[in-house]
Amino acid sequence: MAKVLTPRNEDFPRWYQDVVAKAELAENGPVKGQQVIRPTGFALWERMVSEMDDRIKDTGTENASFPLLIPQSYMQREAEHVEGFAPELWTVTHAGGKQLEEPVVVRPTSETVIGEYMAKWVQSYRDLPLLLNQWCNVMRYELRTRLFLRSSEFLWQEGHTAHATYEDAHAFTLRILHEVYADFMENVLALPVLTGLKTAAERFAGALNTFACEAMMRDGKALQMGTSHELGQNFAKAFDIQYLGSDGKQHHCWTTSWGTSTRMVGGLIMGHGDDSGLRVPPRLAPVQAYVMTVKAGDGVGEAAAALHAGLRDAGVRSRLDDRTDVPFGRRAVDAELKGYPVRIEVGPRDLAEGKAVLVRRVDGSKTPVGLDSVTEAVTQALEADQQALYDEALRFRSDNTTDVGTLAEAVEAAGTGFARLAWSECGLEGEAKAAEQGVTVRCLQRADGTVPDSDQEPDLVAVLARAY
Amino acid sequence: MAKVLTPRNEDFPRWYQDVVAKAELAENGPVKGQQVIRPTGFALWERMVSEMDDRIKDTGTENASFPLLIPQSYMQREAEHVEGFAPELWTVTHAGGKQLEEPVVVRPTSETVIGEYMAKWVQSYRDLPLLLNQWCNVMRYELRTRLFLRSSEFLWQEGHTAHATYEDAHAFTLRILHEVYADFMENVLALPVLTGLKTAAERFAGALNTFACEAMMRDGKALQMGTSHELGQNFAKAFDIQYLGSDGKQHHCWTTSWGTSTRMVGGLIMGHGDDSGLRVPPRLAPVQAYVMTVKAGDGVGEAAAALHAGLRDAGVRSRLDDRTDVPFGRRAVDAELKGYPVRIEVGPRDLAEGKAVLVRRVDGSKTPVGLDSVTEAVTQALEADQQALYDEALRFRSDNTTDVGTLAEAVEAAGTGFARLAWSECGLEGEAKAAEQGVTVRCLQRADGTVPDSDQEPDLVAVLARAY
Repeated sequence: MAKVLTPRNEDFPRWYQDVVAKAELAENGPVKGQQVIRPTGFALWERMVSEMDDRIKDTGTENASFPLLIPQSYMQREAEHVEGFAPELWTVTHAGGKQLEEPVVVRPTSETVIGEYMAKWVQSYRDLPLLLNQWCNVMRYELRTRLFLRSSEFLWQEGHTAHATYEDAHAFTLRILHEVYADFMENVLALPVLTGLKTAAERFAGALNTFACEAMMRDGKALQMGTSHELGQNFAKAFDIQYLGSDGKQHHCWTTSWGTSTRMVGGLIMGHGDDSGLRVPPRLAPVQAYVMTVKAGDGVGEAAAALHAGLRDAGVRSRLDDRTDVPFGRRAVDAELKGYPVRIEVGPRDLAEGKAVLVRRVDGSKTPVGLDSVTEAVTQALEADQQALYDEALRFRSDNTTDVGTLAEAVEAAGTGFARLAWSECGLEGEAKAAEQGVTVRCLQRADGTVPDSDQEPDLVAVLARAY
Repeated sequence: MAKVLTPRNEDFPRWYQDVVAKAELAENGPVKGQQVIRPTGFALWERMVSEMDDRIKDTGTENASFPLLIPQSYMQREAEHVEGFAPELWTVTHAGGKQLEEPVVVRPTSETVIGEYMAKWVQSYRDLPLLLNQWCNVMRYELRTRLFLRSSEFLWQEGHTAHATYEDAHAFTLRILHEVYADFMENVLALPVLTGLKTAAERFAGALNTFACEAMMRDGKALQMGTSHELGQNFAKAFDIQYLGSDGKQHHCWTTSWGTSTRMVGGLIMGHGDDSGLRVPPRLAPVQAYVMTVKAGDGVGEAAAALHAGLRDAGVRSRLDDRTDVPFGRRAVDAELKGYPVRIEVGPRDLAEGKAVLVRRVDGSKTPVGLDSVTEAVTQALEADQQALYDEALRFRSDNTTDVGTLAEAVEAAGTGFARLAWSECGLEGEAKAAEQGVTVRCLQRADGTVPDSDQEPDLVAVLARAY
């Protein structure tokens, strides 16, 4: 049988493109850099939204909706912010057949417009913290785009909060990083992530500090999966977000912002995929169990339907495929491409023995299972395979992470994975030098792997890698 | 106590604005006609999305995501479509600091771009029906805007489907109208809706037939709550959506589209609100039960927390308000404004008697309830009040609907409600005449109130009204 996908180790970027196309996840849109997310891809994003949204709400954050279009003048109020985003803006100049008085930009992110409203809504310390989030689309002009990973339009959530004190804002920034982002990525996406601090060069435009989650893809490159920013009082001063303190005086707030996007779908593909396609971790999977008839035969359709119903009753997200007009081989290949965690194959021969075959996507293993035990076997497999995917990814990252002593060694090691180098051996100069060779500092960590409060802490370790 | 809101019968539009502002539902955005939906308003929309999305998925429709920006040339391919939408378009001319080669428009609706992709995805009759939906933002330039009801940007779902035959497309258009839209509006929003056919003058630009759900607001005006369009083969021909039939020949598909939007939040406010604010039907309500401490006192906080926990355990969406630093009166007024279906007030005096007070928003009734019976009493009240709101709205519509014999009578009756007039007595000419006086044909129905297949059926009844 001809290979459906270019093998990963032959040409990883081509393999990625193949998976996105053949698993029917997404396509390019008609306007440069835009994307069409197809139902199979969108279902992955919907599950991400659902899991993330629960965690976001657990922090007390509420969802809201702010406008798509932002006056150009808003963007200009925070000096670093406009400098960072100006080259990426899409501009609307006409509406209703007439030229607008002031050009407006399609939001690349919403700190400015949300800052304007926070200033109205926050009056006293009793209004704090103000914890907002929105799920929406944003646009950033990009010269080189890649589906899910870098596109002119993408879907994301952006959280924006205002706090009374530095300490409260700082703690909330880290709470989002750990309890929302890293927790979701590790426990649902089954992707181990490094959490750390960005260097000044990689910081969000207008932030004091940017914290990030970084995952290793199967080509050893890093993918930034999410960021959480301490904005200090920069935006509060630019937008006059003030509160009356219990001391009777006016104070500027401390604000934060934090985001994750459809980019995580790219991370899912490159973090777990293999030469047969996607492997979706069970807790995320929109379809956890795929019940297939192998071919028509006495009682096959009925048995498959009964297994499907039993799985649904047990709370498993099951889908039934009883199409007999499409060859089984083609359907099985498609199920592998789409990465359904387990398949239950129901054919006349096994059925005659009172059995069906359980196929696990994680390792391709096939096990005949008595019809009465299918639900239990599936439930156990889903639980075990969630862990197996995480363990495999963690082992891969560990095998491809090297402690090095010099910048040259770091650049060398970043050819195949992550390099850990004392930040004092790298510094801003070393960082710039590495960047010339396509290697960046993904984050700074303490020696024990925890997240530093600032880049002024002593004895920090820089993690260097090539990155998406 | 000063009135928080302008009374409805004094100035209905002003009352509406007051509710939107005082219940903290939404505000104007910085760019003309855009809106900021605040957490209390957005939570209503989130619940609508959740209930609607379940119903949409039950029809076999899958969610996807198509781009925000559409090439101008796409819009021009279907003649009536571009004519209808051209005056409303927002145009992007620059990106990344440069002028674009072809201007692109912000989607006002996505028939064109989705048509382009359907043409790629549909090959054979086996690929049909193709059932897609997306939840997204769209923009239409509007001169006069009103929060939720008419805004330049709004959030909506737009369904787009392709079918092999006229019959299948027709049946699906009506299935969405009845099983998704009317079912949601009547059973969740508790708003009775008329379902019917739009006249040629009110039809979607490019459609064969537009079907709609129309609700009566408390000022007797109509609000179009949702539409479902039969697009015939117009878009299939413009975008070349063809399939290979089982007869071995190529055929153009029959397509449909259908949408509902954040406008429904406006319908909820004007369909159920009273002089104290919103009244949210229990099945929709993000907060069904609002447990409040009246004032500090022995065991009050603990009792309120226990009642809240008990309600949550019973599956009631409960919120606890134990703020003792905000006066009870202010909190109670706020709870009324926001329309929480029931409040449970816990104060020292009632508590001493082992009771709390159950306040029902639907009629303002206050009943002391033994602490052990609160959960049961709340559950019963929620069930009953869902029905009570529906019954009240139905009675109001019935009281304000008049069967008339002439166009003049219809225009007169439309001053206070709906007028039912034989379509043969109205016709296109009468419709144009009524429109000059601000009265429109909301829909055509059969005499028994059911939905006609086309405006060529005999003995149709026109429902005329003033409308939002």
